[in-house]
Amino acid sequence: MPTAGIVIIGDEILSGKFVEENAAFLIGELRALGVELRRIAVIPDDVDDIAATVTDASRRFDHVFTSGGVGPTHDDVTMAAIAKGFGTTVTRHPDLEAKVRGYWKDQLADANLRLADVPAGAELVYPGGRSESGPLHSRGKDQIWPVVAYRNVYILPGVPTLFRRKFVDIRDRFRAQPVTAARLYIDIEEGELAPLLDAVVAAHPVVRIGSYPRFSERDFRVLVTLEAADAAEVAAAFEQLAASLGTRVVRREEPHPVGAA
Amino acid sequence: MPTAGIVIIGDEILSGKFVEENAAFLIGELRALGVELRRIAVIPDDVDDIAATVTDASRRFDHVFTSGGVGPTHDDVTMAAIAKGFGTTVTRHPDLEAKVRGYWKDQLADANLRLADVPAGAELVYPGGRSESGPLHSRGKDQIWPVVAYRNVYILPGVPTLFRRKFVDIRDRFRAQPVTAARLYIDIEEGELAPLLDAVVAAHPVVRIGSYPRFSERDFRVLVTLEAADAAEVAAAFEQLAASLGTRVVRREEPHPVGAA
Repeated sequence: MPTAGIVIIGDEILSGKFVEENAAFLIGELRALGVELRRIAVIPDDVDDIAATVTDASRRFDHVFTSGGVGPTHDDVTMAAIAKGFGTTVTRHPDLEAKVRGYWKDQLADANLRLADVPAGAELVYPGGRSESGPLHSRGKDQIWPVVAYRNVYILPGVPTLFRRKFVDIRDRFRAQPVTAARLYIDIEEGELAPLLDAVVAAHPVVRIGSYPRFSERDFRVLVTLEAADAAEVAAAFEQLAASLGTRVVRREEPHPVGAA
Repeated sequence: MPTAGIVIIGDEILSGKFVEENAAFLIGELRALGVELRRIAVIPDDVDDIAATVTDASRRFDHVFTSGGVGPTHDDVTMAAIAKGFGTTVTRHPDLEAKVRGYWKDQLADANLRLADVPAGAELVYPGGRSESGPLHSRGKDQIWPVVAYRNVYILPGVPTLFRRKFVDIRDRFRAQPVTAARLYIDIEEGELAPLLDAVVAAHPVVRIGSYPRFSERDFRVLVTLEAADAAEVAAAFEQLAASLGTRVVRREEPHPVGAA
């Protein structure tokens, strides 16, 4: 199962000025795509922190998505930070410069050209997952701003409407096998449940099993979730646990592929 | 200004089973307390990942708050992971064991005793910020479950109602000077704004200035936020920026201490 990390670059999130929306959105998207999200880091607009966090995630995960810090003002340091982290420089990309000049025309402010600055060696990713490093040549692309990617790092804007639109543009490139998931809602205390879970965990080690106590639900006390890439293993673990619990199971969600609802 | 990091331990968040609520809550609490939140990490229920992430945060920040992984089931590995990260072992704390036995009485399941297992050397923090390592002696404490802390790491449960209650119990221990903040809502493009901001950033380097373009608001195009511990510097930066923008400022939030509203 391919893995992913998300790096949210945002003083404005850490200081509570805006509620985080982009990781929240990507969690559901990645799950539906069959990509295993392994880490979300929310960090300040700080060059060294961004450089270290993004390169670490790039080494550890198949795909990395960053959010924020890509505009024209002094607090937009993501491109410089990613370049620094990978030991390269920032360069003005001719295709992006052409798009910036074409968009603003005689209203162009010098600072807008910073939108064309990317880490040297970056790739432009257009909708449908096609990559281009040469000049623009098809008409459709003139209306579309590509996503800037450096190696396995996709550099997305922080404004939620733009973040979502740009991710949806390129998401097919990340599609993998959907995971199979199931749930049991159980009227039992976690302390009593623990040894029954241990038996299922031991018999089905590839199935990831989570146990979540809830204290404000009327009809159940613990939600147990089971999931894995292997549908047969999920089904076997699910039946073993359900059988050991008998009438304590108050509700079942049978094994099903996630995102295929 | 004291600093903080949050570590959310939760497969259930990364896989989208539950929406993240605890970091979202703590962002506002820390801001009102005058504590600078520097990082949020959301990571899986994995011993080595927890150990590395928590010890790294403990070295870098004044306070660290963890959420999740402290119940009686197989997926509750936070105590073991934190012990491993700091090179110590897990031990059964006699005060906590007494509370567990007193709470469950003859309904006690063996697994419930795991709630009394903490990293050796951990401290129990009771409401109001008092710490105890000796036996319980005052009546009030019999009704209260303390927060387990190891050095500067406060280990909180993942269930949101419990997380909030336990943080509120101990939050006075973290109170510092409130930050001063101000805002300008501006009808200008970020590209034009950038050089004006650069001048204010250069003149007032201690003021943290954020520039946030918005595309769905009716009356402004950019929100600029200014904040610092030094109220006079915030006021001076605010007036300089407002003067340079003139009638482009459509709304002002004057400098004010955060959390004192």
